[in-house]
Amino acid sequence: MYVDGKAYRTVWLPNQISETIHIIDQRHLPFRFIEEELKTVEDTARAIKEMHVRGAGCIGATAGFGMYLAAVEASRSVDFEKALRISANILLKTRPTAVNLSWAIKRQLRDINNVDDIRAKIEVARLTGQAIADEDVIACKQIGQNGLPLIRNILAKKARGPVNILTHCNAGWLAFVDHGSATAPIYAAHDAGLPVHVWVDETRPRNQGARLTAWELAQQGVPHTVITDNAGGHLMQNGQVDMVITGTDRTTHTGDVANKIGTYLKALAAKDNKIPFHVALPSSTFDWNIRDGIEEIPIEERTAIEVTHISGEINGEECTVRLVPKETKIANHAFDVTPARLVTGLITERGVCDASESGILSLFPEKK
Amino acid sequence: MYVDGKAYRTVWLPNQISETIHIIDQRHLPFRFIEEELKTVEDTARAIKEMHVRGAGCIGATAGFGMYLAAVEASRSVDFEKALRISANILLKTRPTAVNLSWAIKRQLRDINNVDDIRAKIEVARLTGQAIADEDVIACKQIGQNGLPLIRNILAKKARGPVNILTHCNAGWLAFVDHGSATAPIYAAHDAGLPVHVWVDETRPRNQGARLTAWELAQQGVPHTVITDNAGGHLMQNGQVDMVITGTDRTTHTGDVANKIGTYLKALAAKDNKIPFHVALPSSTFDWNIRDGIEEIPIEERTAIEVTHISGEINGEECTVRLVPKETKIANHAFDVTPARLVTGLITERGVCDASESGILSLFPEKK
Repeated sequence: MYVDGKAYRTVWLPNQISETIHIIDQRHLPFRFIEEELKTVEDTARAIKEMHVRGAGCIGATAGFGMYLAAVEASRSVDFEKALRISANILLKTRPTAVNLSWAIKRQLRDINNVDDIRAKIEVARLTGQAIADEDVIACKQIGQNGLPLIRNILAKKARGPVNILTHCNAGWLAFVDHGSATAPIYAAHDAGLPVHVWVDETRPRNQGARLTAWELAQQGVPHTVITDNAGGHLMQNGQVDMVITGTDRTTHTGDVANKIGTYLKALAAKDNKIPFHVALPSSTFDWNIRDGIEEIPIEERTAIEVTHISGEINGEECTVRLVPKETKIANHAFDVTPARLVTGLITERGVCDASESGILSLFPEKK
Repeated sequence: MYVDGKAYRTVWLPNQISETIHIIDQRHLPFRFIEEELKTVEDTARAIKEMHVRGAGCIGATAGFGMYLAAVEASRSVDFEKALRISANILLKTRPTAVNLSWAIKRQLRDINNVDDIRAKIEVARLTGQAIADEDVIACKQIGQNGLPLIRNILAKKARGPVNILTHCNAGWLAFVDHGSATAPIYAAHDAGLPVHVWVDETRPRNQGARLTAWELAQQGVPHTVITDNAGGHLMQNGQVDMVITGTDRTTHTGDVANKIGTYLKALAAKDNKIPFHVALPSSTFDWNIRDGIEEIPIEERTAIEVTHISGEINGEECTVRLVPKETKIANHAFDVTPARLVTGLITERGVCDASESGILSLFPEKK
């Protein structure tokens, strides 16, 4: 996607001999766009842990490239394997619940251990890191192509455009390497010249919608309007939303969708107003072991500071203000689960399917 | 209700000969508690317009007392009637959509015009101002008594307390003269020694829940937890909410409820999880002319600044930060309409009834 007209990914190696990872430091968006160089495993771990990068695909790709730096560093050590294992553990511990993180690190360890020569190990690590990133891009692009007909069909039924799409949180290209999941069909439609307009939930408490989704849509020139998380129901009731597309952090193979807290409320409103509610995901996000999302998916409780404090800009400086008195008790659940019965369809890199076991297996028969 | 252990109303005359209104300047809560003196009609108009006071009952009572100041000022003018009419218009224009405001002013004009002597007019204005405030207190207190059995019944069915009540926005005593509407049953239960715990929606964009409801519950010693507006659905899904009580800005005589944006989403979640959803209101809030809330109640769109900026505390100072870049487009609908089918019951000063035309008329047969 584009930043000030220049093509970017969220994480990349500038060239084939580079021993430095480049990322977009997302903490300062939308007010400042900062490119950061990660020169060591330590740098990379800090960038993941302190959320310079966030989002499943982006974390996975960063960790993948991080393992390339780990191989480079291990080659300077007396015990390559031990050094690599220590680095892998440092990276693993940065975000313990991120599925893509451990998946990328394990894949790297397997590939690196598959060859013997140290130079070959480094080269394999670089190629695997690049492959993880490239595969993420391809999957997201395909999600876009698969979601595009849904938007086209809605447009065909409307007297006039645009197609109004509501999204929650950031499942945009900033959360992946490129294209995003929920945003991929939107970007595909925009690129195809279809008129789209996006309602962007601000997404309290971390405001990823207002900070990240709005920024990336603006950079791509996609018309959009930021709203509070409270507003979606009213807009749906009044015919101002044609479809909802969100991402997901984990989806059961029965179609229950864990996503940013508040997604469930929007799904209820979509159902009540007969508006299609789609969830876009690369198939790596499916959990093939869990049947009942509400009973079985653990919901992370995060620090109260995300609710009690908020940061913004004042006179060109970023600053953080306290919203409630110190003594105020806070609960901060990060995700909720939208039951499959409220989900119209899942948009994956293989196609669109029903949010049901049979629907999902029809696209992924190898999981039977 | 209490502030630092001392009994307060939101607006009051300190004694029978006072020609000064006292209010709580709510703009600085929860960080600073400021009592303000309103010495003139001009002061009073500014206090309403700039939201030193807000909330239907509180605005009505402040305007009522403002008309007493108007009578005092008119008595010093050569043309009492003209001066009074000018003051009434100034007060009327402060918040054009507030029903209680115009109702209080009209009642004062009628009562003041009913007597001839100037001294008698002033005395009538004072008494009517006091009566408007006192009636608001009595209605809210009665709402509390009528809602109390609902909480008691839930407690009786639970293995152990507390009764977890979710509320949205501020329909507390700060929005009225005392007790509040949604909070009245909660305060009544707390005073009766029943264990209650309140989930307080922060209520974006103006954060009246986090700023006002949490503050007044803390002052009364009622256990509570502030959550983002996104969180209620998850809590309901997981058995952590026993009932919802909200206030309302306007309720049709068929039971459709206009209230702070986001109320509809909570009502949907309550329905989906079979949790009772009650709306508390003094009967002055009923609109006896409108049948279809979604079609007929106009929804105010407010300034984007409420969404783009937020104020909080930094190093003991209040300050305002910008949350999104200047160019970001915003929509800011202030209210939504919850259809009667999602409302379990209405708690009024006359009792609890179904949210239906027949239910409401059973309590207000004179409206048949």
